[in-house]
Amino acid sequence: MRKGERTRVMILEKAAGLLNRQGYLSTPISEIMQETGLEKGGIYNHFTSKEELAIQAFHHSVNTMRQHFAKAYQNKTSSVDRLFAVMDVFRELGDNPPLPGGCPLMNAAIESDDAHPVLSSEVRQAMAQLYNMMKKTVLQGIQEKELSDKADADAVATVLISTLEGALMMTKLYKDSIYMERAIDHLKTYIESLRVPV
Amino acid sequence: MRKGERTRVMILEKAAGLLNRQGYLSTPISEIMQETGLEKGGIYNHFTSKEELAIQAFHHSVNTMRQHFAKAYQNKTSSVDRLFAVMDVFRELGDNPPLPGGCPLMNAAIESDDAHPVLSSEVRQAMAQLYNMMKKTVLQGIQEKELSDKADADAVATVLISTLEGALMMTKLYKDSIYMERAIDHLKTYIESLRVPV
Repeated sequence: MRKGERTRVMILEKAAGLLNRQGYLSTPISEIMQETGLEKGGIYNHFTSKEELAIQAFHHSVNTMRQHFAKAYQNKTSSVDRLFAVMDVFRELGDNPPLPGGCPLMNAAIESDDAHPVLSSEVRQAMAQLYNMMKKTVLQGIQEKELSDKADADAVATVLISTLEGALMMTKLYKDSIYMERAIDHLKTYIESLRVPV
Repeated sequence: MRKGERTRVMILEKAAGLLNRQGYLSTPISEIMQETGLEKGGIYNHFTSKEELAIQAFHHSVNTMRQHFAKAYQNKTSSVDRLFAVMDVFRELGDNPPLPGGCPLMNAAIESDDAHPVLSSEVRQAMAQLYNMMKKTVLQGIQEKELSDKADADAVATVLISTLEGALMMTKLYKDSIYMERAIDHLKTYIESLRVPV
């Protein structure tokens, strides 16, 4: 990696952790300068604007999460195991987060939905990837007769994402994993209710 | 109401709508000046700091929501009807919000949880009121033999708040009420499963 490229990656890694905690667009450039140890010019050498840096830092955070979801799916062959593995990744986001600040999708969604259409559009695309991964898993489960053909894949993806994101919000707010544990217990019962009896 | 008090209330009302959309702490004072039509001095005449204004605006937003929850509970005598009424308030937050920007609890929780302990503490107290209202409703339903004594009031309160807040996030992100509708369908089935058969 060339030196310029190394600096760009260093800025993105540090900015991703900072902006996921403090706000993708609301964090002032002065804090990004402090976090990276660079002058303003050293940062804008690599990004045309603070907005571009924010969007790229968001992509960096989403990529980190995507790798965790891919790893959680590894070696899981059944659809139910895969859906349970998604729950484990959310549990980890509360307990021992792979990136500081929790779920970048929720953080950036709440920050941008009423105020920042460019970031909001990026969040919609990233959320669609998680949603479609889960929907596909349910459809596969139905096809392989592991899940009932009465299961509605869109409903399952919506309920899982909504409940896990909301529970992560509560767990982070109270710094107490009990909210996430109750949500996961509920969702496991829900998924079990969709299983075809063996 | 004296003139000074009228101005204070006007600032709070306008700031509450603006800050619930754009961020309680991240919105610059210049935007609050524009929204209220006041100079900086005219605002700081009534609030000692931008943080104090943000906290008071958050309380104002929470009070607006509290009135909506109280109204939704009116004339509802059964616990199940009351829990369904809470769902209706969340549906309204997506469709036709009583205050712009969605749920102040979630907005302020996500903004503050990693970054602003003072606001975060206010959110915990406000969230506890919603949580306890729902928990009490479930306990009353058990006592009156409307709900099964196997129902766990903490689990029900956690699952309802998590799922509704997460679904509101998705509905606002995609500007599509289908996410909230799927979440409510799921939660109604869940609550019905806790009902004592008549």
